[in-house]
Amino acid sequence: MTQKILRVDMGKGTLNYEDVPEKYRRLGGRALTSKMISDEVPPNAHPLGPNNKLIFAPGIVTGTGSPNSGRISAGAKSPLTGGIKESNAGTPFAKTLAQKGIKALVIEGKAKKDKYYILKLGNDGEELVEADDYLGMGLYKAYDKLHEEFGDNIEITGVGIAGELGAANAGISYTDPEGMSSRYSGRGGLGAVMASRGIKFIVIEEPEEDKIEIKDKETFDKGRKKLAKALSEHDVTKKGGALYSYGTSVLINIINESGGLPQRNFSEGSDDRSAQVSGERKAEEIKKRGGVRPHKCSPSCIIRCSEIWTKEDGKDPVGVLEYESVWALGPNCGIYDLDVIGELNRACNDLGMDTIEAGNTIAVAMEGGLLDFGDGEGALKLMDEIYNKTALGRILANGAEYTGRAFGVDRIPTVKGQAMPAYDPRPIKGIGVTYATSPMGADHTAGYAIAPEIMGVGGEADPFDIKKGELSKSLQRATAAIDSAGYCLFIAFAILDIEEGLEGVVDTVNGVLGTDYSIEDVMNFGKQVLETEREFNKRAGFSKEDDRLPEFMIKEELPPHNVVFDVPDEELDSVWED
Amino acid sequence: MTQKILRVDMGKGTLNYEDVPEKYRRLGGRALTSKMISDEVPPNAHPLGPNNKLIFAPGIVTGTGSPNSGRISAGAKSPLTGGIKESNAGTPFAKTLAQKGIKALVIEGKAKKDKYYILKLGNDGEELVEADDYLGMGLYKAYDKLHEEFGDNIEITGVGIAGELGAANAGISYTDPEGMSSRYSGRGGLGAVMASRGIKFIVIEEPEEDKIEIKDKETFDKGRKKLAKALSEHDVTKKGGALYSYGTSVLINIINESGGLPQRNFSEGSDDRSAQVSGERKAEEIKKRGGVRPHKCSPSCIIRCSEIWTKEDGKDPVGVLEYESVWALGPNCGIYDLDVIGELNRACNDLGMDTIEAGNTIAVAMEGGLLDFGDGEGALKLMDEIYNKTALGRILANGAEYTGRAFGVDRIPTVKGQAMPAYDPRPIKGIGVTYATSPMGADHTAGYAIAPEIMGVGGEADPFDIKKGELSKSLQRATAAIDSAGYCLFIAFAILDIEEGLEGVVDTVNGVLGTDYSIEDVMNFGKQVLETEREFNKRAGFSKEDDRLPEFMIKEELPPHNVVFDVPDEELDSVWED
Repeated sequence: MTQKILRVDMGKGTLNYEDVPEKYRRLGGRALTSKMISDEVPPNAHPLGPNNKLIFAPGIVTGTGSPNSGRISAGAKSPLTGGIKESNAGTPFAKTLAQKGIKALVIEGKAKKDKYYILKLGNDGEELVEADDYLGMGLYKAYDKLHEEFGDNIEITGVGIAGELGAANAGISYTDPEGMSSRYSGRGGLGAVMASRGIKFIVIEEPEEDKIEIKDKETFDKGRKKLAKALSEHDVTKKGGALYSYGTSVLINIINESGGLPQRNFSEGSDDRSAQVSGERKAEEIKKRGGVRPHKCSPSCIIRCSEIWTKEDGKDPVGVLEYESVWALGPNCGIYDLDVIGELNRACNDLGMDTIEAGNTIAVAMEGGLLDFGDGEGALKLMDEIYNKTALGRILANGAEYTGRAFGVDRIPTVKGQAMPAYDPRPIKGIGVTYATSPMGADHTAGYAIAPEIMGVGGEADPFDIKKGELSKSLQRATAAIDSAGYCLFIAFAILDIEEGLEGVVDTVNGVLGTDYSIEDVMNFGKQVLETEREFNKRAGFSKEDDRLPEFMIKEELPPHNVVFDVPDEELDSVWED
Repeated sequence: MTQKILRVDMGKGTLNYEDVPEKYRRLGGRALTSKMISDEVPPNAHPLGPNNKLIFAPGIVTGTGSPNSGRISAGAKSPLTGGIKESNAGTPFAKTLAQKGIKALVIEGKAKKDKYYILKLGNDGEELVEADDYLGMGLYKAYDKLHEEFGDNIEITGVGIAGELGAANAGISYTDPEGMSSRYSGRGGLGAVMASRGIKFIVIEEPEEDKIEIKDKETFDKGRKKLAKALSEHDVTKKGGALYSYGTSVLINIINESGGLPQRNFSEGSDDRSAQVSGERKAEEIKKRGGVRPHKCSPSCIIRCSEIWTKEDGKDPVGVLEYESVWALGPNCGIYDLDVIGELNRACNDLGMDTIEAGNTIAVAMEGGLLDFGDGEGALKLMDEIYNKTALGRILANGAEYTGRAFGVDRIPTVKGQAMPAYDPRPIKGIGVTYATSPMGADHTAGYAIAPEIMGVGGEADPFDIKKGELSKSLQRATAAIDSAGYCLFIAFAILDIEEGLEGVVDTVNGVLGTDYSIEDVMNFGKQVLETEREFNKRAGFSKEDDRLPEFMIKEELPPHNVVFDVPDEELDSVWED
């Protein structure tokens, strides 16, 4: 029943199961990937070079059936930021890896140049299979083909054409419950790290025996129920609630209303046309077209924010048009058409790219004069450039900052090289503090200050108040803990407001590990994860000056509130003080 | 007679002469540009954004007629490194600017998007003239046209097509005595800073009155003679000496012999075919073809390392095929053909690009599989991509690191984003310490350890010895002083060995300024310049981890000596200790 580390050396062509060292036994998810990357990857390693590693780790509770526990963390030194990266996703792949008894899957070394393999983790053994037939193929088709080749009883993770390009916006795709490429460790270019090892896909068979060990079943069950109860009671997460009914896109109207929904490369904070791409509007269309809404991204989910979007004729499914994706590929490009956004999102899923970075990239290219804001046709043609691996495609696949350089743009909304999500930090300061200080680069999930600033969840905070160091700090710590436990971040809405839910989380972790952690222990644990990550970044050359927003956001007022980002540097730095 | 600062605000369209503040009165060249950039440019400024500035400053002795004093410094925040940059050149433009009484020319603000101007500094006033007719034109033709438009009594500085692209390898071109585009503030992308202000060319008329003031003529004259004597006696700098006879390319055979001449993107340290592109071979060809050798890059030069290369039929002049350029565009790309190298160099001069970065870029593209090493035809076609402003051209014009990312290359020979010159730091450690620690990024001129390590000038140092912190430190300080005085760095060969020459330098500086500096004062002055630069970089986010060579040079042995770069980090950091 003991969980193992599976180490695959693509330079040597070896696969070895290793015992889990004592120091890693009580870690999972982000805590485990970040600690192992910190321990094993030299901070000066070139992200695509032989000394970087890609590590997959399910969370501590992943695969146990606790609610919303289907998360997997992928970690590496990021080609996009040059720092440590953990990017997590909800997918049945997570549960399957955990149930197979793999606590961490380490991909290291590099195969011969331009050689790609499928790593098959089957019930009768592991093997590396040549992937030549899959090169240059979109992931929708590739996943179908993999199912034909390896059967239906599998989950898949893989990299697309963007990964083959070694591009810094190559994400890692995972199957959703329908077997489609729609779940993503999108951010930070980890797909390029995977591809540079020579791994194109990992195919894992559903194991015959569930190898997850729950040390204290009683505590675990008690916790699982408490958490389920909290999730089913909170307005945001309950059945029929906001996420259930409209998915994450419920935020389009809310954030647009707040004046913080970036339009046309962060030039304005609202536009009436945003309503045309709102979650409400989308849910209506999905119903009409015969898509799926609500939908689970992974088996244990009870929130069901996911969905399957289709074209008007019910064809070409896309899972899922998230709020962030709709915004990035929509209003941020001056595009207010769900069909165009759907096609762009499908292309991203198919090419293996992060939608947030991709949308920012298109917007920056528009700012640079490559095409006009609002030109949906033009944006779709840009995707073809990536399919065709043209020079322009190589530029675009490398993300917003890279593309900005190609076109001489000086307004580039990135931190540590990573493009910003769907909240302008000028009128919503707390999320700006998270963007600035997270070791991950601009990342809303790293410390989601929007909850108290806009949604009134987990207390209330004035979005214009510049004292947000403390808020971002505690959210970042809690997030690091949740990402390590293996829970979906959306449980936070419930557990921030309902104490019993938080207890449930701690109980389930204690149940699996046989530990006796307090809530405070768990927060401290999150703090340690962050410090490990920050220390890696420091050794990789980052300083506090990298914990800053780009110049234009400090100088240029954002309509309609006409505010700049004016959180003082000292407030930003306070995130790292005790 | 008083010198002024000329400030041109391209946002406001204003030109103002200002008095020189007390704190800048005794500064010139690099000391002045670096101090002003440090004082006036916010360290978080986007290099192409409205808050960066480009500053030209002649050296303290520039224009006085002291030997080899025709230098100009250009300074800004670099688009290539993200740090402070000073890039200096020898050109008649320097003398002319100084004699016109301009101690510093500051270009700030930004003109309207895609609007370009010629800044004319005429004897009857200054004006901004629209430059529309010159866009997309090569600099050879453009400089001819400018001479037609503004007369022959002018010197020019300008940016080419690379600058119009906002590309990080856009250099600033200056006229040579023949009026051609061949002298360069090449490194660090300052051409993109100039272009982003909306300045395409600066045309300066020879002034009717020489406004240079020499406070103590007697001391100055004494110094000038001492320096001239030293230069005329030292083997490297004298008439008929190495530089006079063969130009800087005399080093091709010497460095190849040492095992430190990088071949095929820093994969080997020597190749017998290097002899085909040696300085000796080139001098022979120039003679045969009717080019010019030796040649002065600027009026006061008595070393005359420069030259004018031509095609076999004596046409298409190129000034000058430097050692660094021949290496970068030649052996480093596996190209051993002077005619191909000459054409590539001419394209760089015409496009407005640094040859070192351009050669490294081609080599990295070759490593990335875009074309084969040795493919000279292919390399020339890459230049057409830049002329045509294609997407591939935009990639290439942004330099080696950027191009490496486009093609997924993990062996990229850069420090702080700037590509390495023609000495592999693995078998010649001292130059590696300079590459690593210079605030400028990888730059041989910042502290030319090759002199003692290979040439036996300024003492002797074992190139394989890893104790090189002290050597690089003192060379970097001396260099910063020379770059500020306005002397060509090549006087260092003579003044390192001949004490009287060094005295001459200090005397001339004292003569111009009316000061009484000692040699020690001057070295301390160099130290202060470096500290100003390093402090700017620190505020811009650099840490000591940025003072490192790329990973592959630390891990990968270089034939024929089969050594890695093994100077410890502490030794590197010692450059910044007292």
